[in-house]
Amino acid sequence: MSGRVTDKLGARVMDVTGGAPSSRHLSDNLPYVHKVGKPPRQKLCTEIAATLKETFFHDDPLRPFKDQTKSRKLVLGLQALFPILEWGREYNLSKFKGDLIAGLTIASLCIPQDIGYAKLANLPPQYGLYSSFVPPLVYAFMGSSRDIAIGPVAVVSLLLGTLLQHEIDPSNKEEYLRLAFTATFFAGITQATLGFFRLGFLIDFLSHAAIVGFMAGAAITISLQQLKGLLGIKKFTKKTDIVSVMRSVFTAAHHGWNWQTILIGVSFLAFLLIAKYIGKKKRKFFWLPAIAPLISVIISTFSVYITHAEKHGVQIVNHIQKGVNPSSVNQIYFTGDYLVKGFRIGVVAGMIALTEAIAIGRTFAAMKDYQVDGNKEMVALGTMNIIGSMTSCYVATGSFSRSAVNFMAGCNTAVSNIVMSCVVLLTLEVITPLFKYTPNAILASIIISAVVGLIDIEAAILIWKIDKFDFVACMGAFFGVVFISVEIGLLIAVAISFAKILLQVTRPRTALLGKLPRTTVYRNIQQYPEAMQVPGILIVRVDSAIYFSNSNYIKERILRWLVDEEEQLTKNSQPKIQYLIVEMSPFIDRVFIAVVFAAVTDIDTSGIHALEELHRSLQKRDIQLVLANPGQVVIDKLHASSFANLIGEDKIFLTVADAVLMCAPKTNEP
Amino acid sequence: MSGRVTDKLGARVMDVTGGAPSSRHLSDNLPYVHKVGKPPRQKLCTEIAATLKETFFHDDPLRPFKDQTKSRKLVLGLQALFPILEWGREYNLSKFKGDLIAGLTIASLCIPQDIGYAKLANLPPQYGLYSSFVPPLVYAFMGSSRDIAIGPVAVVSLLLGTLLQHEIDPSNKEEYLRLAFTATFFAGITQATLGFFRLGFLIDFLSHAAIVGFMAGAAITISLQQLKGLLGIKKFTKKTDIVSVMRSVFTAAHHGWNWQTILIGVSFLAFLLIAKYIGKKKRKFFWLPAIAPLISVIISTFSVYITHAEKHGVQIVNHIQKGVNPSSVNQIYFTGDYLVKGFRIGVVAGMIALTEAIAIGRTFAAMKDYQVDGNKEMVALGTMNIIGSMTSCYVATGSFSRSAVNFMAGCNTAVSNIVMSCVVLLTLEVITPLFKYTPNAILASIIISAVVGLIDIEAAILIWKIDKFDFVACMGAFFGVVFISVEIGLLIAVAISFAKILLQVTRPRTALLGKLPRTTVYRNIQQYPEAMQVPGILIVRVDSAIYFSNSNYIKERILRWLVDEEEQLTKNSQPKIQYLIVEMSPFIDRVFIAVVFAAVTDIDTSGIHALEELHRSLQKRDIQLVLANPGQVVIDKLHASSFANLIGEDKIFLTVADAVLMCAPKTNEP
Repeated sequence: MSGRVTDKLGARVMDVTGGAPSSRHLSDNLPYVHKVGKPPRQKLCTEIAATLKETFFHDDPLRPFKDQTKSRKLVLGLQALFPILEWGREYNLSKFKGDLIAGLTIASLCIPQDIGYAKLANLPPQYGLYSSFVPPLVYAFMGSSRDIAIGPVAVVSLLLGTLLQHEIDPSNKEEYLRLAFTATFFAGITQATLGFFRLGFLIDFLSHAAIVGFMAGAAITISLQQLKGLLGIKKFTKKTDIVSVMRSVFTAAHHGWNWQTILIGVSFLAFLLIAKYIGKKKRKFFWLPAIAPLISVIISTFSVYITHAEKHGVQIVNHIQKGVNPSSVNQIYFTGDYLVKGFRIGVVAGMIALTEAIAIGRTFAAMKDYQVDGNKEMVALGTMNIIGSMTSCYVATGSFSRSAVNFMAGCNTAVSNIVMSCVVLLTLEVITPLFKYTPNAILASIIISAVVGLIDIEAAILIWKIDKFDFVACMGAFFGVVFISVEIGLLIAVAISFAKILLQVTRPRTALLGKLPRTTVYRNIQQYPEAMQVPGILIVRVDSAIYFSNSNYIKERILRWLVDEEEQLTKNSQPKIQYLIVEMSPFIDRVFIAVVFAAVTDIDTSGIHALEELHRSLQKRDIQLVLANPGQVVIDKLHASSFANLIGEDKIFLTVADAVLMCAPKTNEP
Repeated sequence: MSGRVTDKLGARVMDVTGGAPSSRHLSDNLPYVHKVGKPPRQKLCTEIAATLKETFFHDDPLRPFKDQTKSRKLVLGLQALFPILEWGREYNLSKFKGDLIAGLTIASLCIPQDIGYAKLANLPPQYGLYSSFVPPLVYAFMGSSRDIAIGPVAVVSLLLGTLLQHEIDPSNKEEYLRLAFTATFFAGITQATLGFFRLGFLIDFLSHAAIVGFMAGAAITISLQQLKGLLGIKKFTKKTDIVSVMRSVFTAAHHGWNWQTILIGVSFLAFLLIAKYIGKKKRKFFWLPAIAPLISVIISTFSVYITHAEKHGVQIVNHIQKGVNPSSVNQIYFTGDYLVKGFRIGVVAGMIALTEAIAIGRTFAAMKDYQVDGNKEMVALGTMNIIGSMTSCYVATGSFSRSAVNFMAGCNTAVSNIVMSCVVLLTLEVITPLFKYTPNAILASIIISAVVGLIDIEAAILIWKIDKFDFVACMGAFFGVVFISVEIGLLIAVAISFAKILLQVTRPRTALLGKLPRTTVYRNIQQYPEAMQVPGILIVRVDSAIYFSNSNYIKERILRWLVDEEEQLTKNSQPKIQYLIVEMSPFIDRVFIAVVFAAVTDIDTSGIHALEELHRSLQKRDIQLVLANPGQVVIDKLHASSFANLIGEDKIFLTVADAVLMCAPKTNEP
């Protein structure tokens, strides 16, 4: 490496504009053909080590530890585990100012949201506040994102609530709570394990499009659930699909709706949405949507308290337990039937929480141009949820809406999370009783105004424009969530994402290449209509490695192209046959003399089998199989399998142009 | 298409050796750059239709139906469903001669095998014979392979037996039998459905390497099971793993072994293996291994009958029901708990049976150079098993050993299956009582000698040579089957196959390109050590489409390359900095001026996001992002997402050489 680099900087800087053009030799009779590179074979262990490194340690996490003393390694290790030790040393007052303001802003936003989200998960309201106290603290010490705001979020709360109530009826409070902690514990274990074993890439399998659809569907579902609080309906379905919910709403229309509740709910919803709109339009009013929820809570609570509206059917929060998080270590199920159930729910909720947090982390890291280490982040999130599960918290993660507010309020580091955490602590210790008269309707409107932001119509339109298959995934997830249930929507999203991968590996794009006029460049004849196919030679490029999953398809595809072209050729040339005999006799017996396979990058055992079968089929028709520009690994494997000997070493060329040159002359001879 | 073809044949045959070289313009000051192709946008429905066609109908099954009259279409349709109507019309006596000999040969081989295989599936011996009567008949009418020999096979029998006895104890004869028919029915349904919905490519997901390992493991397991019959052990474990079986064998060593049985078994096993060896060495003796089993059965049965060895502990077959297949329609479970179990077992057994049959069909089709339509074949196999399940047959498929014998005996069409079927019918009607005194030991040695051929050590060595990951899959499946159980081995095989696909899509190969001296060709600098990197330009090629599953990895990989090279560069150039200021000042502020992305073939929404993020990160470092030779779809999508405007239309080039030319001049200016 260093040798090459010196070359680049030394006097011998390569002249890119000079050099003999590769095609110069094309006019000679004895062309100079550049040899196909055959690098020295690597040792097996080096090879395996390199593959493993590229798969699991592609970010080279141990690089800073190289050539350091032991004590320095310890410090670096601690800093890697607790990034606060690194950035904390440069922390100063001016940074704290930004963090303080941001922290206070997100605290004012999170408190009412937490109470509402806890209800989505069928938990008493204080558990939402608990989850905004411990997890952000833990994250601040271990996390590497500077902008994320940690706490309970709508989608995970809904998902957890749905999954839990499938197993235990929420009215069975104690067991339900225990299962929730068990699930949270295993969500944390899942997250930390994925990070520790560097399997973070698994969350990349949920495609962006599927997430957009899933989030929008979840937002609709969550909003529909809020109709209960917003309209003051007492008997409400437990299902989450739109049909059941709307039926529930209309059944209750005549006697179940409560006009006072509707008045409070709708008017504050309008207020919140307007505040949101203003905040979006004018960036300097970003604080308006951030504190609007708290203002609404204060005003509505006060008016209910004065008017005693709760006696006229307006449902209120009633009771929130005062005090900090109690311990819940001994409430987690470590044995029995519920262990398995909690584990299953935890894995699903943990993965979704992870997907959301990592997406947020990456988005803001890209905006401020710093790196977020996905695997390290997972360990941080996992630890935070494990500790959370032992201190009466349920699954927490990064919240889209609060992180955006945090960012806009000018946060500098994770200290804003610590500030928020302190405010939540104060709330728990001092002011929870004040929430007694807070109407449920106001919580409903806060949740609706929060989740509306998850519906990203612009993203959906862009997806439609860019990739239709992605759009199907997006809509599949969306309608799955809205019309069936959250789990089914998630399942559809995962299934379609996987279907896309399967499609990609079983049906790779293939192209016929032609020569661009006045160049030696060969390109897809569909993309470049001016590219001309070389007579008698079929040039094929497969845009993928040839693996077991596609080897048969590729073989059959090429054979079918041969048949197609031959049919066309004989159909068109029937009347011209007399002429042809004189002009180019070789074409009469056989239309093709060679198939050139361009740019195969990788191959496996099944791929080599397919090539062998293709070679055999072509041989029967007197057609040669030629390889142009094969990749390094392909050359190695062709030799290992002695397929290179089978087709002949001289059938492997550096470029398509070289290959055509060697095959073509014979076609032009009379 | 036809226009292009006429060009090829007409007077304007393209001159491949001529044409201005693409690099000619490199020496000019105003280079002529070929434009990147932007084909007219296809309509949405055309696009979707084309994708669907390529995915499910890539073999264009409806082509013969085009432009035909209605009655002709009906005939063609019938012929497509029953290929016998097509080849039957050209059938003649000379073909029949070959088929008759082949049919008699495979019949003599299949009768003793069938009886043994039925025992592997824990079924009474006559069910093996039943399964060699009806299914081959059905297949002869519907199948398109000319060489496959249909009937029960060892691996599927073992798998079915193992799966069934997990659900019902085989001593519960009636229910066990009913579940076996139910599983067979659903195996057929699975196969026919996969074929009908053209999902045949799903079986390609079991990689060749995994199958080699699975088959070898199954062969070992089956052979171990035969130790019971071969050694005359009465108490034998029900588990199939090697540890349990060997413990069982040695526990029985002192009093459980029966020397007469061992004598018969081992001597005939030696005879069979020698016959097999001779048949392999000298092709003209191919009939020897084919009829050796029947000879062994006749001789051993006769000697047991004469010596009354059954009274000295030699276990014999005892009773085989006489007569043709009874109906079993009303024995299939269409309701209740066993329906689900039967379905699950049927799906697994059906898929494995399919994999085996298709592999055989393809192998022999490639040898004789005819096409086997995978999807049509699946419909044939499925129908055959559905009908089989109603006529007391269990899952039948193509047998490796018998198909090879069929091929070598000179079969011409599926008529050899009909001949075999007739012989089995005669056997059922007339000579089953004669099998009464056949010793079980002889069946054991016949099975061992048959499955030994499934252990393909050469293939395993080749896999090791070609692809180490494939070898892991192969060994994983092998040891899974041998040491744990058939299902676990199968699960390991599928899991490793999938892991490979995931690896392929998440960690595509990436390469840094350099310019080959005296050409304008850019190649992987690892493969071609003589290739020189262009100073100040990082040229990257990703050997895969950029999809959601790898977009983050690719982005991070490229950024890391930048950092690596910059580090190296600054490290190496520290002492030279004075020199550099004069010579090439642009390098001092920033080491790179452009990243060229070569040959991106496809991209999706997540990929475009990643490119945008990469662009933003590069912009912050004053580095340009340049695309060279993007695929058709990529160009479309770049425009749809307006990413093309973001980086600028003039940053997209036809070739890497063009891109370097446009970026490079500035680096050389002082």
